[in-house]
Amino acid sequence: MMKRLDALAPDFSANLQKLLDWSSVADASVQTTVDEIIHAIRDEGDTALLRYTAKFDRLDLSSADALAFTREEIDASVARTSPELLAALTQAAARIRAYAEHQKMTSWQFTEADGTVLGQQVSPLDRAGLYVPGGKAAYPSSVLMNAIPAKVAGVRELIMVVPTPDGIINDTVLAAAHVAGVDRIFRIGGAQAVAALAYGTATVPAVDKIVGPGNIYVAAAKRAVFGKVGIDMIAGPSEILILCDGKTDPDWIAMDLFSQAEHDEQAQSILISPDAQFLDKVTASIEKLLADQPRAAIIRTALTNRGALIHVPDMDAAIELANRIAPEHLELSFEGAEQRLPEIRHAGAIFVGKYTAEALGDYCAGPNHVLPTSGTARFSSPLGVYDFQKRSSIIQCSAEGSAVLGALAEVLAESEGLYAHGASARYRVKDHR
Amino acid sequence: MMKRLDALAPDFSANLQKLLDWSSVADASVQTTVDEIIHAIRDEGDTALLRYTAKFDRLDLSSADALAFTREEIDASVARTSPELLAALTQAAARIRAYAEHQKMTSWQFTEADGTVLGQQVSPLDRAGLYVPGGKAAYPSSVLMNAIPAKVAGVRELIMVVPTPDGIINDTVLAAAHVAGVDRIFRIGGAQAVAALAYGTATVPAVDKIVGPGNIYVAAAKRAVFGKVGIDMIAGPSEILILCDGKTDPDWIAMDLFSQAEHDEQAQSILISPDAQFLDKVTASIEKLLADQPRAAIIRTALTNRGALIHVPDMDAAIELANRIAPEHLELSFEGAEQRLPEIRHAGAIFVGKYTAEALGDYCAGPNHVLPTSGTARFSSPLGVYDFQKRSSIIQCSAEGSAVLGALAEVLAESEGLYAHGASARYRVKDHR
Repeated sequence: MMKRLDALAPDFSANLQKLLDWSSVADASVQTTVDEIIHAIRDEGDTALLRYTAKFDRLDLSSADALAFTREEIDASVARTSPELLAALTQAAARIRAYAEHQKMTSWQFTEADGTVLGQQVSPLDRAGLYVPGGKAAYPSSVLMNAIPAKVAGVRELIMVVPTPDGIINDTVLAAAHVAGVDRIFRIGGAQAVAALAYGTATVPAVDKIVGPGNIYVAAAKRAVFGKVGIDMIAGPSEILILCDGKTDPDWIAMDLFSQAEHDEQAQSILISPDAQFLDKVTASIEKLLADQPRAAIIRTALTNRGALIHVPDMDAAIELANRIAPEHLELSFEGAEQRLPEIRHAGAIFVGKYTAEALGDYCAGPNHVLPTSGTARFSSPLGVYDFQKRSSIIQCSAEGSAVLGALAEVLAESEGLYAHGASARYRVKDHR
Repeated sequence: MMKRLDALAPDFSANLQKLLDWSSVADASVQTTVDEIIHAIRDEGDTALLRYTAKFDRLDLSSADALAFTREEIDASVARTSPELLAALTQAAARIRAYAEHQKMTSWQFTEADGTVLGQQVSPLDRAGLYVPGGKAAYPSSVLMNAIPAKVAGVRELIMVVPTPDGIINDTVLAAAHVAGVDRIFRIGGAQAVAALAYGTATVPAVDKIVGPGNIYVAAAKRAVFGKVGIDMIAGPSEILILCDGKTDPDWIAMDLFSQAEHDEQAQSILISPDAQFLDKVTASIEKLLADQPRAAIIRTALTNRGALIHVPDMDAAIELANRIAPEHLELSFEGAEQRLPEIRHAGAIFVGKYTAEALGDYCAGPNHVLPTSGTARFSSPLGVYDFQKRSSIIQCSAEGSAVLGALAEVLAESEGLYAHGASARYRVKDHR
């Protein structure tokens, strides 16, 4: 079912490239629809929001007041969530919070010999928006992963939007929002929800940054409002890359490949090993275990279309390939993996050692499950507290420092033909003489 | 010449909004041209690069080899730069580097009671691209500000592109690149240079992130390749907001307003003060000083169209307004400004006290001059070393930790209908029993 590639084959590089290629097709009709929706929300506010919610979610609300979930509705959803699940959400939240606390950036400054102070002041965003999909792809774990870093950062108000198609409420999603400390929740979705968060309406407040996953309309809307507000990365399909020396139970590895493949038909599961016989064993495990999987059809499609088993000469070659692929999830399932960590330059999250199933990272290990996909780990990072904080440079010159820097700035400003820059600096020099 | 606004006037809020409004007009014809260029570079590589360079820069190169500046050419440009200017560039570079060192992120990890290790590994980008405009808007200071953080981050190879329209080389720009430690320089510009950096050609290597300012074509190209590579913020016109209690020399303040306004006709200079008479004095200083300014015409247009003098009841109101505006540059020209710093939530860079002319920050104080514009300081930060580093999460479970987390993950995974996730976690639990 899965492609077999040999890293020493002459056409390997081209075949790998083909395997990895992924581009979110920018459909012009999606873009046109999204632009219209954004335009309508900016012009008409709540009126358009109610209209689109009736049209796309088949939900007729009597007035804009009904867009927000009430405290009572949220409490009722929490009450309908099983105590076991609620306890699991609370435990996972505690671990995600504890890890996130380590990411918090702090302000710093230093004073130079002449009394000039330089530094960086860190502040949280005032308000953040969290998009949560409705329907079958509604993941409470995703609510925790997106909301908790914002709250740890100190965001004053965290607004969540989640559509309720046909009025159906996902209790667990609301319970997760409650556990994570989300401040307000609106029953809206799609491009109209993104537009409302970006520009504000009478009912939905404008936010400074929008995070969270969504369908192609949500992604297009986020891209369109980028600049007006901040956005997180636009995610591609989920991926796992496993490097294994052949000494892990092949059933474990097969199930790890499944755990990625079951997300959707576009998900990518790749295993790299220097042990060709182990690749055969994993293939056998896949055949053996697949039939019992409730999501077998999705897994089969994903493994067939986008999966691969790659044979390499040795673990050095495996690590080199991992850096080339820059995967979202990287499992290092071999003895002594922790010693090779400094050699891993590009990966969203690294799961070290055979006991670390990738799935633990999806729910409760602590680190975020919102990770860079499609090779973007080459230049971007997991979602974190730092995404909800920003920095301001601080410059406070002493009279003496200002004179020294002023003389220097003037030389440079004049070389660029910016005379007022030079004069503005010079005034302070003169005053100090 | 400059608008006078009163913060207590009933229409103030609407007028302020009108003053601040800025949108980079997304011209469809620009987008079409840029898409064509990107497509051609991807398809034809160097051939298209040479063709566009001949067309847009009127520069016919014999072969792709000639796209790169040679060591000798760069040395010759350095030799043609005056010793005074070279010394100033070197001094400024040393200060920018010293400040940037403080921004370097480092890896961290912690071990839990059961032996599970969690952490974050920080790595530099492999390769970064720096766009530098040719012609009149070529600023050597901008080369230093973009290149030095990348080198401090540990980027392995920093590639610079700078067009040479009609073959004219800007010696100071090449000298600045030399001082900053840029690794390779290509004589290309426009959307074709951005496309070459994003996708690579036989001659120009593909990079992981593209930074640096450019015209509308460059900005549109950066937006188009975003996702394939990282990009920095797309900058709007430059802005300064000055809060003054009325006790700074009005000539200084006038010149500070000029120093922003002289950038271009769209630049925005705003002064806020509780002292109405001081606003009159600054107006008088502006009238007195403007005539002598070499760039008087640009300054006049910018101040007339986008400048404002705003009267507020007190400094509290001034600070509240600053947070609303979230300016690129914020000058706090009043006694005891440093005590008010914690109240400033949104600004790209803060210049504290009357001796700190904004111009010092443009060249040599140390902090970066690439800053969030148009209110984006609400959610984004100055360019820094952190823009050339990224993080990978580290999760290494002990057998015991894996069992505990596995049980928890399974509850959550099943609530989301992701069975293979649960099974993958459960295997490790079973093994541990």
